[in-house]
Order: sequence, then C-alpha cells, then structure tokens
Amino acid sequence: MPQPHAAIDLNRLKSLLAGVNRFGFNRRTGGYDRLGFSDADMACRDWFEQQMRSDGLTVWRDGAANIFGRFGLDSGPAILIGSHLDTVANGGAFDGALGVCVALECVRRLKETGFSPATAIEVIATSEEEGRFGGMLGSQAITGQLSADWLEAAVDAGGTRLVDAMADQGLEPQQLPAGARDPGSVMAFLELHIEQGPVLEAKKIAVGIATTISGVCYLEMTLAGTANHSGTTPMSLRADAFAGLAELATRIPEIIRIAGGAESRITIGHVALTPNQPHTIPGKAVFSVILRDTSEATLQALRSEFEQEAARVAQRHGLTLMHTQRSWLAPVSLDAGLADQLEHIADEMRLKTLRLPSGAGHDAQTMQAFCPSALIFVPSRHGISHAPEEYSDWADIERGANLMLNLLMELAREKSR
Amino acid sequence: MPQPHAAIDLNRLKSLLAGVNRFGFNRRTGGYDRLGFSDADMACRDWFEQQMRSDGLTVWRDGAANIFGRFGLDSGPAILIGSHLDTVANGGAFDGALGVCVALECVRRLKETGFSPATAIEVIATSEEEGRFGGMLGSQAITGQLSADWLEAAVDAGGTRLVDAMADQGLEPQQLPAGARDPGSVMAFLELHIEQGPVLEAKKIAVGIATTISGVCYLEMTLAGTANHSGTTPMSLRADAFAGLAELATRIPEIIRIAGGAESRITIGHVALTPNQPHTIPGKAVFSVILRDTSEATLQALRSEFEQEAARVAQRHGLTLMHTQRSWLAPVSLDAGLADQLEHIADEMRLKTLRLPSGAGHDAQTMQAFCPSALIFVPSRHGISHAPEEYSDWADIERGANLMLNLLMELAREKSR
Repeated sequence: MPQPHAAIDLNRLKSLLAGVNRFGFNRRTGGYDRLGFSDADMACRDWFEQQMRSDGLTVWRDGAANIFGRFGLDSGPAILIGSHLDTVANGGAFDGALGVCVALECVRRLKETGFSPATAIEVIATSEEEGRFGGMLGSQAITGQLSADWLEAAVDAGGTRLVDAMADQGLEPQQLPAGARDPGSVMAFLELHIEQGPVLEAKKIAVGIATTISGVCYLEMTLAGTANHSGTTPMSLRADAFAGLAELATRIPEIIRIAGGAESRITIGHVALTPNQPHTIPGKAVFSVILRDTSEATLQALRSEFEQEAARVAQRHGLTLMHTQRSWLAPVSLDAGLADQLEHIADEMRLKTLRLPSGAGHDAQTMQAFCPSALIFVPSRHGISHAPEEYSDWADIERGANLMLNLLMELAREKSR
Repeated sequence: MPQPHAAIDLNRLKSLLAGVNRFGFNRRTGGYDRLGFSDADMACRDWFEQQMRSDGLTVWRDGAANIFGRFGLDSGPAILIGSHLDTVANGGAFDGALGVCVALECVRRLKETGFSPATAIEVIATSEEEGRFGGMLGSQAITGQLSADWLEAAVDAGGTRLVDAMADQGLEPQQLPAGARDPGSVMAFLELHIEQGPVLEAKKIAVGIATTISGVCYLEMTLAGTANHSGTTPMSLRADAFAGLAELATRIPEIIRIAGGAESRITIGHVALTPNQPHTIPGKAVFSVILRDTSEATLQALRSEFEQEAARVAQRHGLTLMHTQRSWLAPVSLDAGLADQLEHIADEMRLKTLRLPSGAGHDAQTMQAFCPSALIFVPSRHGISHAPEEYSDWADIERGANLMLNLLMELAREKSR
C-alpha cells in the first residue's frame, strides 16, 4: 500500500524562479544573459545567497563563486543538491536556474514540516556551468578537477581570459585548485534539470532519470588564407578562409556517418571572420567545434575524423589549419544505485519515468567523479533550450520536484526524536 | 621623333602618400583603418585639404566630404583628377590614396614648371568609395546619383546607419541629393589606381588602361532557424542557420558555372551568427553576398541563380530566407576616346600598356555616367589588395603617374602666352 508522499509548494517555487530571472533579462529578445562571471550573474548570486540567509541556512561562497546553503548538522558529510545559476547568452528561463530553485524549495519544505535530517543538506548554486570558458568551472572547483595551467589558458569566444573575468569580479582564480572540497564531506549530489531535448515530450513522460551524460570535446580551429579584394581576385586564385570553413561544415553528416552514431552531435556555433568585411575575401576564420557523444571511444573517433577532414579541406583551399582543444569532458555514467532508488520512489508515487542518456553536459557529470550523483529531467517544450523559447510545463516540474524531495528525504533520513 | 615628356617628382609623391598614411595606421596588423566617415578618415581629409591650401589651390569640401583643390581659371569647366582617401578595414597603403596623391603631384609639377592650363584642373579626394554603406557615396554625390530613400536606408555591416555616421562628423546627408555638380562644370575625370589583381604583374606590364568596370550587386541575406542546445538536439532535427549558410557557400562555383563566366566573382565576406556561442546551434546567420561581373545581363543572371539557390538551401534546412539588395552598381564601359589618347601618349613615351577590364569598382565608373572618364592601373604585387600586404612597385607607379601627367597636359592645354 503506497504511503502518502511529501510535496513541494509549486507557487513558492514559481516565485523563487521568477526572482532569479529578474537578473539578466534581455528585453529585446525575451531571453536571459547571465554569462558566467558577468555582472548579472554575480548580482543574481548575491540575491540568491540572501534568500538562503533569510531561510535560516548557513550560507557561504567558495573561490569559484559557488554558493552553498547548509541545512541541518553543522559538521559531518552533506548531501549536495542544486544546479547552476549562469546562462548562455540569450538563454532560457529554466536551464540551471530551475534546479537551484527546486533544491531550495525542497529544503524550505523540509524545514516547515519540521524535518530534521540525520545527514546535512546543502543547497548549491554552481558557477560557470555553461562553459563560457570551455569547462564546467564551478563543479570542477568543488571536486578538485582544475589545474593552474588550464585556468591560465582559458578564454571565452570573445577572447576574454577567465582570469581577467574573475579578477573583474574580485575573485582570485589562482586560489581555485587549492579550494576543492574534501571528498569525505559530500555523500551524494542530486540535480534536477530540464531535458533540453525532445525525448520526454515525444513520449509524454513527465520525469526522466539520466543514465549517462555525453562527453564534450571543444575544439577551436583557425583556417587562414589570404584577405584580398572581392572584385579583382579570380575565383580560382583565392585562398578564402570562409569557403574552406563552409566546405568543412557541410562534411559534418559524413564525419558522423564514418566515426559516430545516433548519440553523436557536432556543432559549429561560433564563427569569427577576419576582416569580416563584405568587399574583402575572408583571410581568416576562427570557429568553435563542439563534439559530443555518450561513448568515449566514439568521441575520440569523431575528434580524429573531424581533424583529418579539416586538414584535407585546408589543403584543397590553400589554407593553413591551426587547432587547439579547449576542453575535454569524458562521457559519464551516473550512479546506478541512486537511479534505482529514484525509480523505486517514482513507482511508489505512481509516477511514470524514463531512463535516458543526456546529450547536454551537467554539473552532475563532474560531481559523479567525486560522489554518487543523480540527475532528474523534466520535459522541454519542443525540445528547445539555450534560447528564449525554452519552456517546461509546471505540472511536469512539480512531479519532478516531488520525486526529488522524496529522494532527498530518504537519503537524509529524519533523526530519531 | 618622340618629344621629351614631362615627369613627376617621385620622392615628393612618396612623401605625400606617407603623409596620408599617417592616418588610420593599425600598429597591430600593419594595415590602415580609414573607413568612410570614421575619425581617421576625417582627420586625413583635414590634413590633405591643408596640403592643397599650402600649394595655393582653391580648396573646398562638399556635403559628402569630397575635397576639391582647383588649379587654374576660377570659372569654367574643369578636368577632375583624383581618387578616394578612405580604406576598407585593415586595408592597404595604396588603394585610393595613391591616386589622390598622384593627382596632387601632377598639379604640383605643372605649377612649378609654370604650366598655365586653358582648362582648370581640380584635384579631388572622394569620400566613402569603399562601400562601407553599400554604395560609392562620394562620386555618387558629385554626379547626382543619390536618392533620399537610399541615404535613409543605408547601413554598414555593423548596423550603423549612414545618416548617423555622417551626423557624428557634423555632415547633413539630407542635403546630398541637392548638392550634385552641374554636368557642364566637368569636362573629364581621370583616375590612377592600383590594379588590385594579378594580371599586370603576371604579364610584366607596368601600366594598364581600364576598359570596363565590373558591376557590383550587394545582397544582404538572412537565414533564420532555431537556436538550440548543441548537445540535446539530434542532428536530424536541427534548423541550423550556419549549416544552411555553409551549404550555400559551397554552391558558389556551381552558381558561376550555371549563370556566370570568367569575369564573375561571388564573395561572402561578412558573416554574423546569432547567438554565436560555441554550445548553441546558430539560430540566425546574416551575411553579405557580393556579386560582380563585367556584363549587366550576367550580373542579373548571377543574382537570380544565387537567390534561387539560397531559397532551395533554406528549404532543405528548414530555414527562413530573407534578403535585400543593399546596392546595385551596373557594369560600365569607360570612355574609349580617352583610352585611345592614353595609349597614343604611352606609345610616344615608349611605355608598354595593356587594356584590361577591372574587377573592382572605382570612382571612375560612377563618374563615367556624368563625364568621359579614364582609369590608369599600376600593378599590384601578388595581386593582393584590401590587406596590409598590398604593395606596388615605385618604378611602375612612376611610369603610370607620368602617363597621367602627360594626358592631363594634353587635355588641359597650355594657354597661349
């Protein structure tokens, strides 16, 4: 006989998310601009920290601007629950922010019902998850996965260095490698996130349980030719960097056919031409290549095939190819025990779930290397994310959040009174 | 028996060009940034105007910032000689500026030899020839080819409106259509320019005489799809604006094969993606398409074929296509009589010349609709232009400038004393 299950306060959750989304709203597009370490991102963090203080949590911030709000025992290991507050440029209202708000709402609910956890709970709002600087900085800082070399080299697509962006916000990136959490201090990490893809919506299932998370390889490539006059230079004598890039981009389906599979994704999202003038043949094209797959071997094969094809195209067009790997996040299998536990609770709640791989990267993949981690998905309308049209149905969100709340209660266990 | 011919002072010419090129020099690249109506462009104009005043010419500036320096009779028609002072972004040291300097050097030489022209000579430095705003503004203003509607609509590739760029420099674009020269006031226009292509260098001929000038059609196109997450969106479900643009760009050789010929040029020089973020599928691509040909019918066929191919590509990729014609400059045949006269003088000077079409647009093409116009080319090293590497040999320049000087003397005729 199923027990009655705890439930969150949906209106309070909606109101909290609306509060977060007062920061970085783009009136022109209807999207949100809270890029990692931007002013809007930092202001949002200040505000969210204040909310947690008002809730009576013990609040602190680490050197990466990750925010922690602890509920329960002051010492001993904690269950971490949350997601990220930063967005991509012109991103949506739900990506990351929803998971942070669900985490705090769960704790608010536990507090008001007088639940006293045997294991402390920490609501966390990570920083720079979206990879502005090519990594997943906040969770990498928590878990000790940052190197001083990488920090020194990291730049965003506009050429701003991570160390400069952090220094502008009064942060000291050099301190990050030393600031990792003690592995013994974290028992598990739980994250709720929008799916950002079309699967749950298509199958009409309100809640997904992520199994694996695609790895991500971020290459930055440069094709260099000769900038020249668009009128005088015969077509056959050109070394047109954009013509080379265009040909390479059209080869993506074939690269996936040769080296990839159904979960492979290749995206050229950022392109900067030089001089980028209508009347001049592009002399240089700098562009990002994001490769993703759930299998590490496949991801390696995709990278190799892409690099070889880029070299072939460069040769055909008389261009010079340079490339550098900005980051590599290996595919990750999330904790199977936690996934089973989620499925079990969902069954008790008579909630239909689907286990599915994640094409997007998430803090949970970084955390899994450090502690057992679980990731709950709620459906994304039309599968759209990283865009102002991003939306998730509140009835689905409520189901996912309730599942999270009940897992959290099982893991934290009420202290015997 | 050939007469001795007049000759310019090469060192004085070099020094004058070096003076012009103190404005807009880009230390980082070695190129020049004197975009039309930029601060560097306007400062350069002020300086050049001052040089002509020091030479005792009657100097004025029209509403388009074209500069005139008149030598000889105060009234009656004049022979105009010159070129433009503006550059493309990161352009070369010779494109335009050389022709302006050669014009003033010719007049300096005539003055110091006591030559008193029966027809006045005006050295001109036109404005905005490079088409930052899609036209050839300076010479179009002189010849009455500007409409109020076009002026109102013109924007540069970065979205800055022509009317704003001019207003920032204290100019009133609304006055331009009314400020055209009286056709009876101009007898001829003479221009010396670098070839900007590889033909003269390949044939080892120091001086070219342009016959026709390619027309230029400037299309601005937008492909709009759906910005979405690069990890979660399956390849088959994407509406990737950049993937569409890339396919269209690879079709250019076929478009020329179908609709064009040996003189056809198609260039995609400016690309702006939205949001232009590595981890987001591009939702929008705005790009320039520059079509050029020496035949008006061929240029029309190229435009039609390109537009049709763009529509087909948009459909295949699930994208919306928008396009607008930013400008249309028809191909032009320059004055055959002046070309014959140039060839005759060159023969007398034992100077080998080549008649050739011009792939690049020049003020001479705009002026030809208004008065007989001639265009002398000097070779460009490796055919490179619109780039810091742009260079012309000074021995070639001297030959071309001397030819210009002797044509000018024939046309202006010394007054009987």
